[in-house]
Amino acid sequence: MACSADPNENLAKAEWRIREAAGRGAQIVCVQELFRSQYFCREENADLFDLAEPVPGPTSDCFSRLSRELDVAIIGSVFERRAAGVYHNTALVIDAGGELLGTYRKMHIPDDPLYYEKFYFTPGDLGFLSFETRYARVAPLVCWDQWYPEAARLAALGGAQVLFYPTAIGWHPSEKAQHGAAQRDAWRTIQRSHAIANGLYVAAVNRVGYEGPPQHGLEFWGSSFVADPFGQVVAEASVGGEETLVVECDPRRIEETRRNWPFLRDRRIDAYGGIVKRVID
Amino acid sequence: MACSADPNENLAKAEWRIREAAGRGAQIVCVQELFRSQYFCREENADLFDLAEPVPGPTSDCFSRLSRELDVAIIGSVFERRAAGVYHNTALVIDAGGELLGTYRKMHIPDDPLYYEKFYFTPGDLGFLSFETRYARVAPLVCWDQWYPEAARLAALGGAQVLFYPTAIGWHPSEKAQHGAAQRDAWRTIQRSHAIANGLYVAAVNRVGYEGPPQHGLEFWGSSFVADPFGQVVAEASVGGEETLVVECDPRRIEETRRNWPFLRDRRIDAYGGIVKRVID
Repeated sequence: MACSADPNENLAKAEWRIREAAGRGAQIVCVQELFRSQYFCREENADLFDLAEPVPGPTSDCFSRLSRELDVAIIGSVFERRAAGVYHNTALVIDAGGELLGTYRKMHIPDDPLYYEKFYFTPGDLGFLSFETRYARVAPLVCWDQWYPEAARLAALGGAQVLFYPTAIGWHPSEKAQHGAAQRDAWRTIQRSHAIANGLYVAAVNRVGYEGPPQHGLEFWGSSFVADPFGQVVAEASVGGEETLVVECDPRRIEETRRNWPFLRDRRIDAYGGIVKRVID
Repeated sequence: MACSADPNENLAKAEWRIREAAGRGAQIVCVQELFRSQYFCREENADLFDLAEPVPGPTSDCFSRLSRELDVAIIGSVFERRAAGVYHNTALVIDAGGELLGTYRKMHIPDDPLYYEKFYFTPGDLGFLSFETRYARVAPLVCWDQWYPEAARLAALGGAQVLFYPTAIGWHPSEKAQHGAAQRDAWRTIQRSHAIANGLYVAAVNRVGYEGPPQHGLEFWGSSFVADPFGQVVAEASVGGEETLVVECDPRRIEETRRNWPFLRDRRIDAYGGIVKRVID
């Protein structure tokens, strides 16, 4: 969805869309990253910490009520105020029935022109987690995490059947013509590769719309999709329009894929120790 | 290339093709996996250990001579006899000038119908390595390794600028119609993702041709390719025909890509320890 400057309006829209998804049979619903506001990390402005909220707090309370009413699990996204001076980019996992199963605090924090996230978000300290919801075991990961095979692997080793990536990624207007197609393709490819490497489903949920001043804002590229355990894209939204995708994910496909392409069987865990090094020099 | 049952004929063909590549300006040449024979792992037959050779040995000697004559680095592939009962699927790295810089013994060993590699190959014990050749720092990895993000990451952290994957992968005739396109696409996607995640070049060098009895053999799918540091395929061979790709890889593209998409900067090395577990349960 596209977001306005009004957090209540965005929450109302998300609620409406969650109801729509549930009405169409969804069991687990994921919203996009930081859906309650425009993507405020386009600038470094200390006043914008006002957008943060505690967890539990207004957004988790609203989603708990909704999940109880609709019998759906919800993966939310909030700008979390944990303490004065300690804020996180946090995903919520609420089970069908309304229980807040836990949170995931974004572990990989970007910092690039118009994505000044290191100013706002303390890197997560909860590690890579998965949660057993009524319908499936899910791992929430957030946006920049999607570029890290380690994150996907650790979630998979923890038993996740579906990786959910609430996301806010888009084009710089000045780069789109030259690099835009390659950027979106790389984004899609790396996430499909997590499905392949780990034999599980991947769902990427991205923002749409243009935010910021002409030529100096961001055009979020939508393209939300679900990839199956062999990396095939089974549903995909458009670049520019709001959409609710409802996609069936069959756990038998995970079993079947991992039997036929048994990558997890042959991992050389005796030889991966160097992964925890910055550079091997 | 396609391979016959005659190891000397295959070596002569490889030599001819290396000369062709050098004549077209190649500086580093990579041959396909186990190019000296047909892909013998289609069956478990102890007599086929006769195909193995020591390192240094006939193939490395031949490639050393060639690399000295042509001033090219060569990444070779041999069925290595290391000791009675200890055989490896080994890549050779020979620098321009003829020096054998070292070997890489395939770390991830598959075992699936018609790919009975665990019968033949002891898993590698040298870890994931990269080698400084005259023209670039390269990491040889072999076939099944291509499905493992850990292998690509470790090679990248060691400074590799290009990952080379000598490969022998193909379709089961009975599966091709239903799954063939998805299998080849997954193979391409996971390797492109290594280029993206690590900001380096990836070169996959696969066999072509049909080997084995009709309906019970393997149709190797070729499709050798080079991906740039953003995962874009910059050159690609056909599915069925022999081809020599000569592709320019510019180290400035690595620098530029990693500056603009600085994934390596933000790795959470404090939180990746679980990668060395089989399953986190």
